[in-house]
Amino acid sequence: MSQETQEATSSCLKRTHYCGDLRLTDAGTTAQINGWVKRRRDHGGVIFVDLRDRTGITQVVFDPQIDEKAHALADAVRSEYVFEDVGGEDGLSIYQGTVNPELDTGEIELAVDSLNILNTAKTPPFPVEDDIEVAEDIRMRYRFIDLRRPEMQKTLAMRHKAALAARNYMNEQGFLEIETPILMNSTPEGARDVLVPSRHYPGRFYALPQSPQQFKQILMMSGVDKYFQIARCFRDEDTRSDRQLEFTQLDIEMSFAGVDDVLEVTEGLMKRIFEEAGDIPVQTPFLRLPYHESMARFGNDKPDTRFGMELTDLSDVMADCDFQVFTRTLSAGGQVKAIAAPGGANFSRKDIDDLTQFVATYRAKGLAWVKVTTEGFASGIVKFFTTEQLETAQERTGAKPGDIMFFVADKPKVVADALGNLRLHLGKKLNLIDETQYNFLWIVDYPLFEWNEDENRYEPFHHLFTGGTEETLPLLDTDPGKVQSQHYDLVCNGYEICSGSVRIHQWDIQQKVFEVLGITPEEVESRFGYFIDALAYGTPPHAGVAPGLDRIVMLMRNEENIREVIAFPKSQQGLCPLTHAPSVVTDTQLEELSIRVDAEL
Amino acid sequence: MSQETQEATSSCLKRTHYCGDLRLTDAGTTAQINGWVKRRRDHGGVIFVDLRDRTGITQVVFDPQIDEKAHALADAVRSEYVFEDVGGEDGLSIYQGTVNPELDTGEIELAVDSLNILNTAKTPPFPVEDDIEVAEDIRMRYRFIDLRRPEMQKTLAMRHKAALAARNYMNEQGFLEIETPILMNSTPEGARDVLVPSRHYPGRFYALPQSPQQFKQILMMSGVDKYFQIARCFRDEDTRSDRQLEFTQLDIEMSFAGVDDVLEVTEGLMKRIFEEAGDIPVQTPFLRLPYHESMARFGNDKPDTRFGMELTDLSDVMADCDFQVFTRTLSAGGQVKAIAAPGGANFSRKDIDDLTQFVATYRAKGLAWVKVTTEGFASGIVKFFTTEQLETAQERTGAKPGDIMFFVADKPKVVADALGNLRLHLGKKLNLIDETQYNFLWIVDYPLFEWNEDENRYEPFHHLFTGGTEETLPLLDTDPGKVQSQHYDLVCNGYEICSGSVRIHQWDIQQKVFEVLGITPEEVESRFGYFIDALAYGTPPHAGVAPGLDRIVMLMRNEENIREVIAFPKSQQGLCPLTHAPSVVTDTQLEELSIRVDAEL
Repeated sequence: MSQETQEATSSCLKRTHYCGDLRLTDAGTTAQINGWVKRRRDHGGVIFVDLRDRTGITQVVFDPQIDEKAHALADAVRSEYVFEDVGGEDGLSIYQGTVNPELDTGEIELAVDSLNILNTAKTPPFPVEDDIEVAEDIRMRYRFIDLRRPEMQKTLAMRHKAALAARNYMNEQGFLEIETPILMNSTPEGARDVLVPSRHYPGRFYALPQSPQQFKQILMMSGVDKYFQIARCFRDEDTRSDRQLEFTQLDIEMSFAGVDDVLEVTEGLMKRIFEEAGDIPVQTPFLRLPYHESMARFGNDKPDTRFGMELTDLSDVMADCDFQVFTRTLSAGGQVKAIAAPGGANFSRKDIDDLTQFVATYRAKGLAWVKVTTEGFASGIVKFFTTEQLETAQERTGAKPGDIMFFVADKPKVVADALGNLRLHLGKKLNLIDETQYNFLWIVDYPLFEWNEDENRYEPFHHLFTGGTEETLPLLDTDPGKVQSQHYDLVCNGYEICSGSVRIHQWDIQQKVFEVLGITPEEVESRFGYFIDALAYGTPPHAGVAPGLDRIVMLMRNEENIREVIAFPKSQQGLCPLTHAPSVVTDTQLEELSIRVDAEL
Repeated sequence: MSQETQEATSSCLKRTHYCGDLRLTDAGTTAQINGWVKRRRDHGGVIFVDLRDRTGITQVVFDPQIDEKAHALADAVRSEYVFEDVGGEDGLSIYQGTVNPELDTGEIELAVDSLNILNTAKTPPFPVEDDIEVAEDIRMRYRFIDLRRPEMQKTLAMRHKAALAARNYMNEQGFLEIETPILMNSTPEGARDVLVPSRHYPGRFYALPQSPQQFKQILMMSGVDKYFQIARCFRDEDTRSDRQLEFTQLDIEMSFAGVDDVLEVTEGLMKRIFEEAGDIPVQTPFLRLPYHESMARFGNDKPDTRFGMELTDLSDVMADCDFQVFTRTLSAGGQVKAIAAPGGANFSRKDIDDLTQFVATYRAKGLAWVKVTTEGFASGIVKFFTTEQLETAQERTGAKPGDIMFFVADKPKVVADALGNLRLHLGKKLNLIDETQYNFLWIVDYPLFEWNEDENRYEPFHHLFTGGTEETLPLLDTDPGKVQSQHYDLVCNGYEICSGSVRIHQWDIQQKVFEVLGITPEEVESRFGYFIDALAYGTPPHAGVAPGLDRIVMLMRNEENIREVIAFPKSQQGLCPLTHAPSVVTDTQLEELSIRVDAEL
């Protein structure tokens, strides 16, 4: 044990303030703070140290005239040393200093007459400051340094507040938080399961929950009435930048409830979280947009409605134009749609080529354009259209002189993808988005099934347990594609926050859904036999939703990278850069689990 | 879709009350409740149904004179059918009925003029009632029926309240709840890890956390200052009746803190949980009992102090008695200790034989006894002792006439085990325990290391990161067995609620602890190299604790079986009786994970 740190344990219990607490009104009193050395400066023999904890920074002063020993100790300290500071006698310790407007505590300084250095520190790989450029892998490897940065502390605190606000709100609404198992059976939710070999049952595996879907429905069958859980979920997907192997959702389910009930509870929950944790005002109720309308106007079902530039259908107008690219597409059953980009009349040939490249990544074969100028329409293709056709296009897209209209003619799916993404791309590029705005809206009226062209069969549009509307359910027997689901998605600023639905609560309907999907009775039995069986013992009607906590915090913090809102995230390949998990285990461990690593792979 | 249940979805949003809500003061108004049919009785053409939800039961009445159709429907219902009930016109619906004192709602009845049967139910495998005898495996297999029982609903609600009370208390104390990874590295905590094969890194494995120990210490290094988390933990142990493969702990860690700080926060937390969730008053501060004193007085370090019968050392007195069983043991370095059982003077020979058998399971070779009667001492061995020796024994054990004194002479560990367990056994058998009492106490002053006789080396008494007291730390170099740890255990009514300690925050001390334990630098590097490295970058002193949520709820509910306080527990072999997890997975899944099931095992 080094001499320097020996005094540590004895006197670390006397903190009176945090580093962010002191104000000018405290001048003349004394305080004891603990923290990390952010910076040390020597000014004419007096040492100034910026001491930092999770709340802020206080400037502490070591003057040899106040205490020679403390000054001498302070002379040797480096960044990230851990201090326990004691102010001097009352009336001497805290005083008005040179004002530093960047700090909340910037009007005072704290004179120190004794110092405990609780720990030393190696030179950190990067300074503990916001707004510095550090490669993400270095930040993650030294996450314990990275998390000391004020912005990271703010994120951790906000996430904590969000979860607590959610819990108190749900409790007030009569919901019980109930823990469901992490070690469970494989769930039928589409993504790849994370598997866990069982020691007691050689050759058998648990799966980590992709969501507690089955258990929350079982809880409704158990008479719990209103359930929630802030639940860890797992999906072994090929990780995209906004996905993690494990993530957290606010899992909710309620009995004797329909669409309106769930939407109302969820809106209240969002309002509470955003206002309490993010200080972001939220207006309820949220707009409800039918799925088909969202696809038509925005090209997707998670529209960013903070700006216009909506997609406009011109198929009717263009049916008899002379532009064969359009007419051929239309007669093959395709669409012609357009958007207008404000100020786009001054796009260069290069700009337009880049955008054509951009839409090509969404499989659009071309990007037709017409500029609107005070002198009229300008484009190489103007000659193929009547003035009336172009004027209708201008009117419907809302293009003004100075704007440009972009057209895509293709199959509906390609048109939606290409123009929907072009809209988002231009919205950002042209600075059309108000970053302070939070536009919540529901997407409703989804179909229950989707036809899989390749495999020539129906697939669930969402999942197997989603209920249909009373009016359309009888079509299960005759025209399943027309059954409308009771599913809803909550969207904010172009991101999906949550999905949910009224579930199937009747055994006979659930059976029919399996039949439509071509799931054999054997498969039903082996994958979720117990669940179907349970449905028959008095299941109440029920509905639920599951907002993603990570996404909510990302929105409140204006972060686009999910790793910024998770204390210890993994890389896209599932590696923990800090602990180096996953790692090799011993042969004994594998033997106990009756598994072998297959070396050939 | 059966005709009977067709009306379900349309009108399930109008519930005005829960089944436990209505009182006599509601008479003359109307209400709509939803619930499950508990019982149906026909009384002279009028049908009475006890309708149940999570809050209670209301008696609803179907009178053909009020509504013929509803009455006809009600005629066919069975137990656990799901109802949506509508009362009749105002002034008719709720009225004073025949008083049923067993129900909170027992003074009213609810007349029904229309009925939606939301779902039918197969005959449940057992009735939804408390106090019925059902085999545990049947209950677990039909957990969705079992959880409908009022006592189970009470447990779920109490567990929810306990977690929420804990969270709000910790928040008020300045702690942030931070989620740490479930997929992490193997931790050095002694129990067997639950392993998860990685798909991206063939041959490498994650481990599920035995506790977030490393991450919570990393969070202290990250400047979080005060962390908590209600964390799911995993241990693949050969399950005892009070252990589960997964369990939940209230994980807590704080910086710049010593023993007193943690104990104070934990006491406040217990008070809040027990009072808010369990309605059980708790007095703070808790008593602190040194480890050696607890061992001496109770034979273990989790004493049930709700009754006396403490162990008394008689080694000094018995050193020169004539009973060779005692004297030989004493000269071999053993102990003679005794307890007095109230009223035990009338134990039969058979009673005493049974108790001798009982202590034999703790390796005691015999159980000497002396009865105390108004006529003096009575026993076959009285002749070996002087009156003075027996009077001292009586005085020290506190035996009164009518009691019996039991003596065990053996190695200290055997004496402690045998008499400690005999004490508990007799405490229960003789009804000495006040079940309404909650005796919290801290066990403190543990040693840091324990000598492993078999392997001729030191082992950590608790874990690798436990700190020593300032006074004894210098003995690390010279006499490690004498180093006293800064570990503490919280005990209540004979159960350990939590363990915790002040941690090692200095790199050099942590290294020395590894050396004492004979952990090689290579092992340190491979098992927690990153952690030791992190210690060197400015680690504050820190301490923590981790109360078990399952245990707390068990105590509040007076349950001895952990499965009673978990919504979906697993069997002792880790089987989920409801979902049948773990299960067989496909070859494709195994191939993706680069593992093979070893058929030879």
